[in-house]
Amino acid sequence: MSFWNDLWPGHRGIDWYSSKLKKRLFDAGKPDLAELCRMMMDSDGDFSSLIIAEQILASYAKLGQEGKLEFFKMLAEDYDLDPEVVIALASDYAKNPDIHTFKALTEAAEPNRQELFRRCNLTSDGTRHLVRMREDLLGFLDAHPQLESLDIDFHHLFTSWFNRGFLVLQPVNWTSPAHILEKIIAYEAVHEIKSWDELRRRLDPVDRYCYALFHPVMEDEPLVFVEVALTSEMPGQIHEILDQDRTPLLPKQATHAVFYSISNCHRGLSGVSFGNFLIKQVASSLKSSFPSLQSFATLSPAPGFRAWMAKQPDIPYSESGQSYNGSQKDLLEQAARYFLEAKLPNGKPLDSVARFHLRNGARLERLNVAADCSPKAMEQSLGLMANYVYDLGKVEENHEDYMKNHRVICSAQIRKLLPS
Amino acid sequence: MSFWNDLWPGHRGIDWYSSKLKKRLFDAGKPDLAELCRMMMDSDGDFSSLIIAEQILASYAKLGQEGKLEFFKMLAEDYDLDPEVVIALASDYAKNPDIHTFKALTEAAEPNRQELFRRCNLTSDGTRHLVRMREDLLGFLDAHPQLESLDIDFHHLFTSWFNRGFLVLQPVNWTSPAHILEKIIAYEAVHEIKSWDELRRRLDPVDRYCYALFHPVMEDEPLVFVEVALTSEMPGQIHEILDQDRTPLLPKQATHAVFYSISNCHRGLSGVSFGNFLIKQVASSLKSSFPSLQSFATLSPAPGFRAWMAKQPDIPYSESGQSYNGSQKDLLEQAARYFLEAKLPNGKPLDSVARFHLRNGARLERLNVAADCSPKAMEQSLGLMANYVYDLGKVEENHEDYMKNHRVICSAQIRKLLPS
Amino acid sequence: MSFWNDLWPGHRGIDWYSSKLKKRLFDAGKPDLAELCRMMMDSDGDFSSLIIAEQILASYAKLGQEGKLEFFKMLAEDYDLDPEVVIALASDYAKNPDIHTFKALTEAAEPNRQELFRRCNLTSDGTRHLVRMREDLLGFLDAHPQLESLDIDFHHLFTSWFNRGFLVLQPVNWTSPAHILEKIIAYEAVHEIKSWDELRRRLDPVDRYCYALFHPVMEDEPLVFVEVALTSEMPGQIHEILDQDRTPLLPKQATHAVFYSISNCHRGLSGVSFGNFLIKQVASSLKSSFPSLQSFATLSPAPGFRAWMAKQPDIPYSESGQSYNGSQKDLLEQAARYFLEAKLPNGKPLDSVARFHLRNGARLERLNVAADCSPKAMEQSLGLMANYVYDLGKVEENHEDYMKNHRVICSAQIRKLLPS
Amino acid sequence: MSFWNDLWPGHRGIDWYSSKLKKRLFDAGKPDLAELCRMMMDSDGDFSSLIIAEQILASYAKLGQEGKLEFFKMLAEDYDLDPEVVIALASDYAKNPDIHTFKALTEAAEPNRQELFRRCNLTSDGTRHLVRMREDLLGFLDAHPQLESLDIDFHHLFTSWFNRGFLVLQPVNWTSPAHILEKIIAYEAVHEIKSWDELRRRLDPVDRYCYALFHPVMEDEPLVFVEVALTSEMPGQIHEILDQDRTPLLPKQATHAVFYSISNCHRGLSGVSFGNFLIKQVASSLKSSFPSLQSFATLSPAPGFRAWMAKQPDIPYSESGQSYNGSQKDLLEQAARYFLEAKLPNGKPLDSVARFHLRNGARLERLNVAADCSPKAMEQSLGLMANYVYDLGKVEENHEDYMKNHRVICSAQIRKLLPS
Repeated sequence: MSFWNDLWPGHRGIDWYSSKLKKRLFDAGKPDLAELCRMMMDSDGDFSSLIIAEQILASYAKLGQEGKLEFFKMLAEDYDLDPEVVIALASDYAKNPDIHTFKALTEAAEPNRQELFRRCNLTSDGTRHLVRMREDLLGFLDAHPQLESLDIDFHHLFTSWFNRGFLVLQPVNWTSPAHILEKIIAYEAVHEIKSWDELRRRLDPVDRYCYALFHPVMEDEPLVFVEVALTSEMPGQIHEILDQDRTPLLPKQATHAVFYSISNCHRGLSGVSFGNFLIKQVASSLKSSFPSLQSFATLSPAPGFRAWMAKQPDIPYSESGQSYNGSQKDLLEQAARYFLEAKLPNGKPLDSVARFHLRNGARLERLNVAADCSPKAMEQSLGLMANYVYDLGKVEENHEDYMKNHRVICSAQIRKLLPS
Repeated sequence: MSFWNDLWPGHRGIDWYSSKLKKRLFDAGKPDLAELCRMMMDSDGDFSSLIIAEQILASYAKLGQEGKLEFFKMLAEDYDLDPEVVIALASDYAKNPDIHTFKALTEAAEPNRQELFRRCNLTSDGTRHLVRMREDLLGFLDAHPQLESLDIDFHHLFTSWFNRGFLVLQPVNWTSPAHILEKIIAYEAVHEIKSWDELRRRLDPVDRYCYALFHPVMEDEPLVFVEVALTSEMPGQIHEILDQDRTPLLPKQATHAVFYSISNCHRGLSGVSFGNFLIKQVASSLKSSFPSLQSFATLSPAPGFRAWMAKQPDIPYSESGQSYNGSQKDLLEQAARYFLEAKLPNGKPLDSVARFHLRNGARLERLNVAADCSPKAMEQSLGLMANYVYDLGKVEENHEDYMKNHRVICSAQIRKLLPS
Repeated sequence: MSFWNDLWPGHRGIDWYSSKLKKRLFDAGKPDLAELCRMMMDSDGDFSSLIIAEQILASYAKLGQEGKLEFFKMLAEDYDLDPEVVIALASDYAKNPDIHTFKALTEAAEPNRQELFRRCNLTSDGTRHLVRMREDLLGFLDAHPQLESLDIDFHHLFTSWFNRGFLVLQPVNWTSPAHILEKIIAYEAVHEIKSWDELRRRLDPVDRYCYALFHPVMEDEPLVFVEVALTSEMPGQIHEILDQDRTPLLPKQATHAVFYSISNCHRGLSGVSFGNFLIKQVASSLKSSFPSLQSFATLSPAPGFRAWMAKQPDIPYSESGQSYNGSQKDLLEQAARYFLEAKLPNGKPLDSVARFHLRNGARLERLNVAADCSPKAMEQSLGLMANYVYDLGKVEENHEDYMKNHRVICSAQIRKLLPS
Repeated sequence: MSFWNDLWPGHRGIDWYSSKLKKRLFDAGKPDLAELCRMMMDSDGDFSSLIIAEQILASYAKLGQEGKLEFFKMLAEDYDLDPEVVIALASDYAKNPDIHTFKALTEAAEPNRQELFRRCNLTSDGTRHLVRMREDLLGFLDAHPQLESLDIDFHHLFTSWFNRGFLVLQPVNWTSPAHILEKIIAYEAVHEIKSWDELRRRLDPVDRYCYALFHPVMEDEPLVFVEVALTSEMPGQIHEILDQDRTPLLPKQATHAVFYSISNCHRGLSGVSFGNFLIKQVASSLKSSFPSLQSFATLSPAPGFRAWMAKQPDIPYSESGQSYNGSQKDLLEQAARYFLEAKLPNGKPLDSVARFHLRNGARLERLNVAADCSPKAMEQSLGLMANYVYDLGKVEENHEDYMKNHRVICSAQIRKLLPS
């Protein structure tokens, strides 16, 4: 049903041709993954590379954890750059900056595995496999820091392939294909979607929207999506949004657009940021569809609050440590301290969600206690939620202020929560 | 009408937002291109980068030849890699291969302009502009060889962006959109299409097909396309194909699929090869649609033949040098020598079309005199055309034989044309 | 995402225009339905008719049962044909068959309400409303037989509007839009679909298909759909099909296509038959996609079997009458008698499903006891199911035989079940 | 590329099935058209009807003029209604209005050929063939008035099938498929489109639009289309619109939308009016896209002006009668008399274009001399063109005034042209 039909390999036409080729390439016995990688580097980017790529990806997919680790180690060791060669060529280039030396130098300074990955990407499904491969790799990094250079190469390639100019923003709604919608259910990371009925309540009412970014080669895989509620005021409780018995608001009566859930779908794409563009673009689109909108805000979790609280002295927890026994006023004061004063060693805020929105140029607007009483939210944040406001006329300034000075842009009402 | 709608920046939604941003970024006066590039490198990949990218591309588009040359020189000089830094970092890495040094080294070994180009590609139309930019650059290379390293960077990026896994094969026919079809007319490089009526004769009859490769971010720009005729024998004259009074053949009676025209559409993508995949994929698709097809062949020009002939001794040209006066038999002998014996310094065949098809694994099958009597063809090849056959079961072997040994795979009948 | 976009009235563009018109038409006070119908007949098919049509349909939709009955009675009485006028004009026409008399006669012989309905159909959503209106009407017919002529008019119009040439066959699968899929769940009339997971099991596996007929003006409303299972033998139990733990069959290994559920979606379209075309077309399409298919059969309920059994003498029911206590052999004999000998007064088989498939030209092939043990099936048919075979080479002959002679075409094995 | 794919008969799947059926139906020798029609009436709406319908339409398509006439005469005589039967049934119904009599009466009062046509419409391409059939019929009516009743039946069916609720408004532009665009060229009835370049000038610039109505079953056949120019004032000369060197106007600067060409595409649909809805809907859509638009007007030909002038006394024609020698002022006075005073016997204006726009509720706004100097326009109207204005707030009132009183709504400036 799309412009992009499926005439392409992996599909019918090419089958018999590739089966011949496969026979020829692999008739001496089934090569292992290391051998396949060597064959790939010897091939020349033609159809045989394509066939080898399919084999590499299929072989990899069958590996267990140990096999994967071994594979990554091989890539880290055997497909790294050789600093001696780089030094020699760079010295030549310094003396005589001719084109051949330039070419040789840039090639030598790029680990071979980048070319290996690019060739694996010849298959129509290659990108998807490589994204999953990096997801696996990320799981090994803590225990095997020597694999980090591999991750840098992945990140470098993905940044180029998932360049924002290649991405497409799509509304997701109740007329979207079911195989896309089931991924929305699966990837929702903030407020779990428990059934198709609940999904429908988030997508179908006239005051509910969802937008996702897609990449053309993974057209049935959202990369990141945001769920939006149109409201008549800035909500202080997630229940106001998710309540299944509420009456929808007519869009022309809406004054607020609330981004109440943002989910990245693929861990393998971490560090390749899309969410920033997504929010600003959706805000702009909504504004042009519904001129009555005055404010673009979030209702966001505070995932590190409880853990931080646990380390503060003199917090009146219940004996079991399971619940907070103090006043709401005190809790708000603690929350303000958490957002404004709790920092990472690099000086950025401790709260990861705060870092995301502040980096995007949003302003921390309001703190809400008893805003999300689900077990998960109580566990993470004692029920606290924050509103961030995207004032489109100021996000760039805020962003720069934050980037340079790590300044937490926030409203006066939050600042007042702190004892002077 | 496509899956990919146009909710994206450059479009309505984002307009007022970017106009505010523009004002802020550029209110100190209009920066020149060099200044814009500096601003871009200082920006951080956020919306401001997007706005600067638009300015860079728009400013570039307004430059004359001299301005463009100057711009390229600036990129070649100011955005090159610094070999001293590379040496220092590579030495560090040799001693202590830690992740920070690795990262610093790979970044230092990549000319800054690659990042500059990647950021220009943030705009939805960036890729298209960059392809045109390289087209401009290629025009300067002969006179300014110091720009070649710049071209290597472009080629490196385009190879990654136009990875075959990202490309989509599409049939082009009389139900295709007019703005695509007019590009087929414009880009046809072999047998000129003089009118829409002629275009229709090439696309609409049941025995005529056309396929093109597209990239999702340039969805109205074919990258390369091939025109195919279904026939009952291997044609020896282009007139048999293009004759406007012929009766179409029913596809189920066809035994031959003839690729009679292959056109690359963008000089800016030269060296990023697609044609090879295109022909094999189209052949496989046709075979599965029309099982009666027995042979996949081309009817191809021999663009260097006449120039080569002009340098041979004892060729019976007319006094004016305008026409060949010898026998057809002699002409065929000369043609066989041209294809089998005339070589470039690197050992590859002199004829560029032969190099393309032989590299793809095709076999030179038959030579045809008086095969194309258009003025252009007489001028280039004295009317000679060649049939190359794609035997899908053998193309990979042939390809490798050619790549290793520069061997011209050809039929016995051609070999016999040479005096023993 | 469809070719058919929504530029049409009812949509944005026309809003302010129609609101002016509405004001003008209805400013003298809100007319009742009878008055609206009179206004409609006085209007001239222009935009004012469109506005009135919207009012009529909206007013109707708000009526309760009584109001609807009254409305139908009004249509039956006030918008009927006048036989005296018909007699007069037909007499004129007999004497002098001129064109004006012809026109007057055909108009007079058509009840006015047909024109009224056609004008209501001017709105883009009119057809859907009228189909629902007839659904309401059908509910009144038993108690109010004088409304039957009204039903004949509806049927006459719908037969013309839902002409098979206007219908479109569409595959329905897991990539179909959710708002279509939820209608498949809602309309499934044979084997209830209890959840989205179950729906997925019926649509997504490689050996499961679903096809529906749509009408362009009701493009999100399937009219009738059939669910198909590819199998390696003719199934005797619905459990073989619906089992959620089964392993899918590769389509190229399939020899049987089993139509295990056929559902008409709109009672308001009863008598406008589509199912016949649907089955034959789907069978032909599957055959051309999967040449290995040898047999097209159903696994169908026998909805009247238990009721018929209850009236037979000497059937060994349990004391409570809730279950059958006899042997399977006896049950099969009774079933054979039910299908072959139990008849309606008009000579057609008593079983409604049998009438449908036999009329389509299918052959009654096999009877299966304990084939569906769901409570509903036990209640209706004591668990009995029948296989009907569509032998495409014979369906037309069978159809004619059945239509002329009411002959139940059946296999020898069924005939043998009867005592000779 | 559309939602509506082509799984349907006439297509692959059904081929082998229908060929069997064909053999069976027609094996006794090829029936003639009369026999085919009898077979059709005996068939029962099943697949055999479909096959017979294909035969009828194919046989008809091969007929010459004489054969067609004979066919129409047969339909007029043998498939008419029988007034005696109608009288008998109407008398029964008058006495005893039961449902069976009602049904029999309405069936008897409808000529059989209506059912014949409905069955021909079972084929997916039937509607298109029937529209062409009526086009043929219209050519015979003058000489054979006894066929008029046949035409009334066609009109009756087409009005139901081409009900406005079934039609779809589509923009036509330079991204539309070529096979649609070539029909725009072919059907343009007012200002000939001489080449694809000219077509592009009418569709592609930002101040040019074209909209067409389509019916789903003839999705590659526009029914009627209108070409629109956005301008900054009401144009007085067609040259201002069609000039190929003009600079396009930015839409946001446009104040006028000018409908400068409206073409009905199928003579076979005459009397089934669409143009009225088209103009109002396009006007409303444009208004909502471009709020700066203040006025919706036409620049229209006056096709009967010269013929009328030729009959007036004392008009200063050149001796050859080929050109008008009077003053522009006199010409305008004559033109005003033509529009305001020249009438058909039924009291409506003589000018056919005036009748169309006045019936739609437009106002005759301005007369322009030397407005179209093409030979055709000089021949028809001495170069005169008229502007009609569609004031959406008044069109309904105007329409009713015109329908009731045949009043020519016109501007004061035109009325002043008449001598008082």
